[in-house]
Amino acid sequence: MMDLHRSNDIEFVTTEQESKLGVFKPLNGFCTSLLTDMYQISMSYAYWKNGRHDNHAIFDLFFRNNPFKGEYTIFAGLEECIRYISDFKFTKADIDYLKSLMPHCEEEFWKWLLSVNCSNIKVYALNEGSLCFPRVPLLRIEGPVAIAQLLETPLLCLVNYATLVATNAIRFRVASGKNKRLLEFGLRRAQGPDGAISASRYSYIGGFDGTSNVLAGALFRMAVKGTHAHSFVSSFTEKSVLPSTKLKHKENGKEGDLLALSREGLKELGFTHTNEGELIAFVAFALAFPNGFLALVDTYNTLSSGVPNFLAVAYGLHQLGYRAIGLRLDSGDLAYLSKQTRSCFHEAAKKLGEAFSYFSTFDIVASNDLNESTILSLNQQVHEINTFGIGTNLVTCQAQPALGGVYKLVEIDGVPRIKLSEIMGKISLPGRKEAFRLFDRNGAPIFDVLAKVGSERPEPGKRTLCRHPFEETKRAYVTPTTVIALHSLVWDCGKLSKPLPTLDQIRSFAIQQLATLREDHLRPLNPTPYKVSVTAELYSFIHDLWLAEAPIVEYS
Amino acid sequence: MMDLHRSNDIEFVTTEQESKLGVFKPLNGFCTSLLTDMYQISMSYAYWKNGRHDNHAIFDLFFRNNPFKGEYTIFAGLEECIRYISDFKFTKADIDYLKSLMPHCEEEFWKWLLSVNCSNIKVYALNEGSLCFPRVPLLRIEGPVAIAQLLETPLLCLVNYATLVATNAIRFRVASGKNKRLLEFGLRRAQGPDGAISASRYSYIGGFDGTSNVLAGALFRMAVKGTHAHSFVSSFTEKSVLPSTKLKHKENGKEGDLLALSREGLKELGFTHTNEGELIAFVAFALAFPNGFLALVDTYNTLSSGVPNFLAVAYGLHQLGYRAIGLRLDSGDLAYLSKQTRSCFHEAAKKLGEAFSYFSTFDIVASNDLNESTILSLNQQVHEINTFGIGTNLVTCQAQPALGGVYKLVEIDGVPRIKLSEIMGKISLPGRKEAFRLFDRNGAPIFDVLAKVGSERPEPGKRTLCRHPFEETKRAYVTPTTVIALHSLVWDCGKLSKPLPTLDQIRSFAIQQLATLREDHLRPLNPTPYKVSVTAELYSFIHDLWLAEAPIVEYS
Repeated sequence: MMDLHRSNDIEFVTTEQESKLGVFKPLNGFCTSLLTDMYQISMSYAYWKNGRHDNHAIFDLFFRNNPFKGEYTIFAGLEECIRYISDFKFTKADIDYLKSLMPHCEEEFWKWLLSVNCSNIKVYALNEGSLCFPRVPLLRIEGPVAIAQLLETPLLCLVNYATLVATNAIRFRVASGKNKRLLEFGLRRAQGPDGAISASRYSYIGGFDGTSNVLAGALFRMAVKGTHAHSFVSSFTEKSVLPSTKLKHKENGKEGDLLALSREGLKELGFTHTNEGELIAFVAFALAFPNGFLALVDTYNTLSSGVPNFLAVAYGLHQLGYRAIGLRLDSGDLAYLSKQTRSCFHEAAKKLGEAFSYFSTFDIVASNDLNESTILSLNQQVHEINTFGIGTNLVTCQAQPALGGVYKLVEIDGVPRIKLSEIMGKISLPGRKEAFRLFDRNGAPIFDVLAKVGSERPEPGKRTLCRHPFEETKRAYVTPTTVIALHSLVWDCGKLSKPLPTLDQIRSFAIQQLATLREDHLRPLNPTPYKVSVTAELYSFIHDLWLAEAPIVEYS
Repeated sequence: MMDLHRSNDIEFVTTEQESKLGVFKPLNGFCTSLLTDMYQISMSYAYWKNGRHDNHAIFDLFFRNNPFKGEYTIFAGLEECIRYISDFKFTKADIDYLKSLMPHCEEEFWKWLLSVNCSNIKVYALNEGSLCFPRVPLLRIEGPVAIAQLLETPLLCLVNYATLVATNAIRFRVASGKNKRLLEFGLRRAQGPDGAISASRYSYIGGFDGTSNVLAGALFRMAVKGTHAHSFVSSFTEKSVLPSTKLKHKENGKEGDLLALSREGLKELGFTHTNEGELIAFVAFALAFPNGFLALVDTYNTLSSGVPNFLAVAYGLHQLGYRAIGLRLDSGDLAYLSKQTRSCFHEAAKKLGEAFSYFSTFDIVASNDLNESTILSLNQQVHEINTFGIGTNLVTCQAQPALGGVYKLVEIDGVPRIKLSEIMGKISLPGRKEAFRLFDRNGAPIFDVLAKVGSERPEPGKRTLCRHPFEETKRAYVTPTTVIALHSLVWDCGKLSKPLPTLDQIRSFAIQQLATLREDHLRPLNPTPYKVSVTAELYSFIHDLWLAEAPIVEYS
């Protein structure tokens, strides 16, 4: 079908090596200059043809609404954007292909396109992992209009999903609480391999503890988790014979028969009629992982077979000096089953005596089609789950599968530009802007304020007039205790202007940012909106331009 | 942050070269053996440790419900699965990484893992592009259990989203009708670069006509479309001066001033007060693409500025021998605006006379957050749109962002296996099965029937008893006119067993398949379910096994 395809060898390059080379390539092999919408190429030709390709443009990349009916968002994807920009160029092969699409363009244009890169581009951005809000630019791109325009689609592609999934992840964290372990299990349901890799990476930024995705683990050095599937259990029948059921005692090295000891466990605990194939499967798994035994217990029946068989094998392991880890529930009412399971653990611990008291605290992992609401509802019912494994609804962001990030021209050759719309919320804020976050005396953020770069800026202890960008009557005086400038220069005409933070640094920053936000902004249902305002000066500037550009509609 | 990353050079390899080499690599660089869930690796060790890794297993990959509340699905992703299988192996570096995750595994296991590939695997599958239904296996994988198990996650990842988006696309096709042009515009809102590439590829299979994604165009040689964005328009102001507004006449080569002629057009057509910057932007774009002028008309105001300015430039182009293509609407009520726009076209054609009669038929492209329901509602209101550009809701499959495809063990070493569940629909159908499609005398498919491989199969003209797989009383006698076997061997122990069809062949097959389906199955609201049944023999086989495996719950 296709007559070109990608090399798929993973190159092992350390970040240090990269720093020496000064070349930061995108992680994803599809991140090339052709990863863009056709109209970006058409426009670059039209700019070039009209001698305007080098006009100095400023674009803002921002979103208009927080996702998931929430009032906060976590910004992610910056590193991959910087890598894309660092590596941006058209190859001869790219140009040949584009020529085939646009055979009428002048040859001089192709020469120019072959020469472009981002050595005249500046990027200002929020820190990756920042708490962010509608209309505050995540990125501000400055440079030759034709090049800044070409970056629109790839930057949106790299920011939109990253930010969406990081935000989704942190909402799961808010819903489940600080002490639960959250694992991302979405590979099989993501939008292809890269959707999955991005999901793992950005869920981690959003506060997840690990992933089931081995490749993501290898790429990002994050924790990788997983035990076994139903098929492992069902591959054993009551007639299955294991080549050996012997296991050496952890301390004294003396061999014991794990299957026999597990059968003894069943008897000790008073369980009958469990599925025999399942018991053999658990024993087989425990023989392979005596130190990491965690069993999936719902292949036949959770409470009448899976949990008893798990406890029996845990008993067997105990006799040989090993401690089982826990079990995974993957169907049924998770609140009910987790409580029943915990009761079984307590009963077993009691029955077997002091040495088995740790049976009470076995891990209960739950993983059946969980979403934010299910977790909130489980909390309400009270449950005994320690770890949530979340797949489909995390990675596909089921509740809202896209962030509507946009990329708008706000200034060209020093002239501010505005995009009008009949819907007020869709009007873009013109001009070169910076943003400040104002904090109250408790250290909580209370207002983000956009201002024209170089104009008066909010200061700690000083009363500032904050205005709604569009609604004339919405105004507030704010006297902040602390003021932080949100943007910094991250790409400066061909080079990184500061080192890239590690994934763990980004993750800690995101979690720390969230901890400062008032609880009423975090509430899942009808949260209080966090206010994003403009300075009085920017307000007038916007409205003057708006009136100048909007046509007076003529009815006749 | 990360200390490994991918090479991102696109290798240009022709399919012919591949055939000679006998190596088919996956398109996506992330498709390596590490692209899997951790538990697959754990299980492979547990199989190996218990001497069962070579046991002969059969897995079915299938889904349980059609997506989007529909009653049909289009199967996609097969080629990428075959490429994955063809290239499947662990490298030394992969093994080193896995060892770091599982330090206690025996060295012999790693030696074995380093040696595995798919030379003992057989894959039976539906044709890519097939109309398919719940419970009918899309793929049947046969081979050593540990290897077939390792394939679970990547195959699900490659099939789930591909099938989902192809089905979503064909639903847009069904909603919009045969004569509309459908373009995929989703790159900026997809789940990262590869989500976008997959979306372009599989939307095309589902009957789309092209994409805005240049890289997808290059990889799959599909039509690539696009004009310009709002930012192009707003980069021009009323004071913008073009270096030249001269354009040579298409036939006689005589130069004319396109801006002056367009202003003449405004006057001729009686338009006043249009946005001057927009007019200059349109002229600039038309100077670059005199043969392909298609303007985005809602930057300031669609009906009072954009459409008049478009018509003015179309008039200017006409005077120089060129024909404009049309315009794009990107906001507002698309039914109303398209009808008003079409009226303007008619009026202009009438006012300007015979030579301008083609003005009536200018293309109207619409592209604002469209989904299946919007299109159905536009149809109901009646509209004048010729082309739909569909982004977010196509690629993210907003209405249902994941297909719940699963991969279940159905047989091991000749013994049938079943996965039970308290939810009847989640019980898997055991055994090695094949599927037949039964057609009525009109050529419409009426029943899919699953049968044990090698047992009695349905035949044309012969009355067959079709049974619901679980509900005892649901039975039907069917005498089909035609019977087609749905599965064929596609990967035969290390080699392709038939050539891969081209993307266009798959697309045609999907469209042709859909055309045979009865309209009541296609209906968007409450469609008639298409029946998937089992033979009487398979029915008994399932129920015997079910009773044997299900524990009798004991209440006390």
